[in-house]
Amino acid sequence: MDPNKTQLIAAQEGVVTEQMRCVAADERLDVEDIRAGVACGEIVIPANIGRSGIRWVGIGGKLRIKVNANIGTSPYCAGLEAELEKLAAAVRHGADAVMDLSTGGDIHGIRKKIIAASPVPVGTVPIYEVITREPDVSKVTAEDFLRSIETHIDDGVDFITVHTGLLKAHIPFLDSRIMGVVSRGGSFLVKWMMHHGKENPLYTHFDRILELARAADVVLSLGDGLRPGCLSDATDKAQLAELKTLGKLAARAGKKGVQVMIEGPGHVPLHQVVKNVKLQKKYCRGAPFYVLGPLVTDISPGYDHIAGAIGGALAAYHGADFLCYLTPKEHLGLPNIEDVAEGVIASKIAAHAADIARGLPGRDAPDRKMAEARSRLDWETMLGLSLNPQKARAMRTEALHDSNDICSMCGEFCSAKTNRELRARYRQGDAP
Amino acid sequence: MDPNKTQLIAAQEGVVTEQMRCVAADERLDVEDIRAGVACGEIVIPANIGRSGIRWVGIGGKLRIKVNANIGTSPYCAGLEAELEKLAAAVRHGADAVMDLSTGGDIHGIRKKIIAASPVPVGTVPIYEVITREPDVSKVTAEDFLRSIETHIDDGVDFITVHTGLLKAHIPFLDSRIMGVVSRGGSFLVKWMMHHGKENPLYTHFDRILELARAADVVLSLGDGLRPGCLSDATDKAQLAELKTLGKLAARAGKKGVQVMIEGPGHVPLHQVVKNVKLQKKYCRGAPFYVLGPLVTDISPGYDHIAGAIGGALAAYHGADFLCYLTPKEHLGLPNIEDVAEGVIASKIAAHAADIARGLPGRDAPDRKMAEARSRLDWETMLGLSLNPQKARAMRTEALHDSNDICSMCGEFCSAKTNRELRARYRQGDAP
Repeated sequence: MDPNKTQLIAAQEGVVTEQMRCVAADERLDVEDIRAGVACGEIVIPANIGRSGIRWVGIGGKLRIKVNANIGTSPYCAGLEAELEKLAAAVRHGADAVMDLSTGGDIHGIRKKIIAASPVPVGTVPIYEVITREPDVSKVTAEDFLRSIETHIDDGVDFITVHTGLLKAHIPFLDSRIMGVVSRGGSFLVKWMMHHGKENPLYTHFDRILELARAADVVLSLGDGLRPGCLSDATDKAQLAELKTLGKLAARAGKKGVQVMIEGPGHVPLHQVVKNVKLQKKYCRGAPFYVLGPLVTDISPGYDHIAGAIGGALAAYHGADFLCYLTPKEHLGLPNIEDVAEGVIASKIAAHAADIARGLPGRDAPDRKMAEARSRLDWETMLGLSLNPQKARAMRTEALHDSNDICSMCGEFCSAKTNRELRARYRQGDAP
Repeated sequence: MDPNKTQLIAAQEGVVTEQMRCVAADERLDVEDIRAGVACGEIVIPANIGRSGIRWVGIGGKLRIKVNANIGTSPYCAGLEAELEKLAAAVRHGADAVMDLSTGGDIHGIRKKIIAASPVPVGTVPIYEVITREPDVSKVTAEDFLRSIETHIDDGVDFITVHTGLLKAHIPFLDSRIMGVVSRGGSFLVKWMMHHGKENPLYTHFDRILELARAADVVLSLGDGLRPGCLSDATDKAQLAELKTLGKLAARAGKKGVQVMIEGPGHVPLHQVVKNVKLQKKYCRGAPFYVLGPLVTDISPGYDHIAGAIGGALAAYHGADFLCYLTPKEHLGLPNIEDVAEGVIASKIAAHAADIARGLPGRDAPDRKMAEARSRLDWETMLGLSLNPQKARAMRTEALHDSNDICSMCGEFCSAKTNRELRARYRQGDAP
């Protein structure tokens, strides 16, 4: 195996890769900062060596907060075309990466088509394919889990979720929970461990997984199979025991030159969001933190993208690096194309708000441009700078009337108009 | 004037009013805590003495975070019926108060109809009526402003916004802003001061306003005419100079037995949200803080309810008491009924998340019930506990398939189902 193959090993040897240059250009940062961040494990660049010509992104450190959109079929909605449309919608609205979580139809074929079509890094959860092929744990072997990982890596995915930190010893901690295990991969592994009376095979065979990941430089996203599924279960023994284990596995991966990020919750009350980020950064020595939401309430079906944007903005401001979107359909059903768009935009708002709050240089430039356009009532520029120009334009048109420089909210009583007059007078020295 | 008339004076004299009892029951708190909170100015109860039989709410202190929905006509959409429907939608989705901001049609008649129809406290901004009747500042007198306030109070409104803290001395601070004055009332007052060369009449006649408010026990919502209209203008000299003035006026109101709350921004970057709350609480000695959003980005037209929910949740967690909603139409046009519903729900999510985070007892009860319903796959209870059961049900139905206990997201690969099996086995001692 060529030790130069992974971004991490290259960075540690002082080598600047094409991907690092791409990330530096995207972030308008010095490429040496990117290299140093990758070298110390604070930044990952998901870039399967088998892929080329995509829009590589860096995740972690002082980089822009990234957004992931989950797409993929389910047993009841298994069409490839719809998923490719969701991919296009996610990318159009600003997703920095997508995960193909397909569990229905020709999973392998769909994955290859999505990888081929995606201009951004693609992640998967190989265990879903194991579950789909054989739902009966008694018939699933450790080798099946490993073979699935190998297949996904060979197919060219840039990052994979592996629930390596969920141990047999953690299972008793679940008894005090309301929701138990809500991760699909996690619950299958618990079932597997209980049936076979053995340790999590993704843990016992972690070295083998590291070899596979290193050979193709696939980023391991260490999954939180025990993430809380409701506020009451948040930050409990089960979650933290797994997180500590993930920290140790992350260190092992680093020593082998494998890039890792850590997945996080889930459902977390607002006052525990910052604590969750701080604990992850501590236990995992600054590895990038990839959170699902977090959702700050359990009662928002239909609006989980909003509950997730609240938690995501706060988490990202305090150090989370990668936001997995939630769509309005979360907890209700498989998202459609519109749900995907709404989910990406909600997460983009959270990510952007956090970027500005973290003081990343130039991150408030679009906001400044918007403010300037507003102050001169330049509607075309305002609509163009909006996160979803098409939707903003439709809303404006719906509300539009005769006069082009006002809107139906205030009509002639428009403060921007008044302001323009005031400024002109004030600048002429006509102050009170 | 009967000094017992206001809630504040009653509270200070140790008298418990019907409204305080109503608030105590609503909040499940000891009525003595409510009385003490009102007495020290940390809680207000908007309850015009001319109104009865409404759902009184307390705002401030350790009470549940409240949500306000702005409704009202514009010059281009001036129908009463639509506004009554918006009122009903706002209340149905959980608004604790509404403001009638009508600027079109028969404003006076519409206001009276909305007050008569509203089961929750109603607020207004009397200066809007002044502007609507006479947009030319040269023809508007101090007496016009006062007469408008008197009319609104006589009509029975429970709280009014008065921009009393915007002084002539603050105008030069505006020159460094991108957006200047974005408050409609504020910009009219600046124009008035510049034209007449006089101080803000709402400031110079503040004692007269206090008399009017005290006579009917109308809560004064001291408006932030200089609130920032973009991130770049946030927490600047103009905003803070006005806030300090509002703090002094709040103290004067308290001495006269008049209940007050303080209005706040607006557009504020995430990292300045907490600072804004702390400064308000300091300058205004714990008076309730009523914020508009705050919006944590300027580029979210079409999604401003989400940007506002992020800022609102964080502000409320750190001490803001009353969230004015934003709808998806903010910055684009007058909201329709669906926008009102979406706006209220986004703010309710923010308020609820903050209630839980502030540790208010029992506030996570709906979340616990939701988690329990989820763990037993009890869809009817889940839908019923959702913030918008009708929408959640429609989304679920859209995604529903043969099997009633799963959804189209995971199909048979449902972690809740797996969990149920695991728990049963685990409880039988079948642990690994």
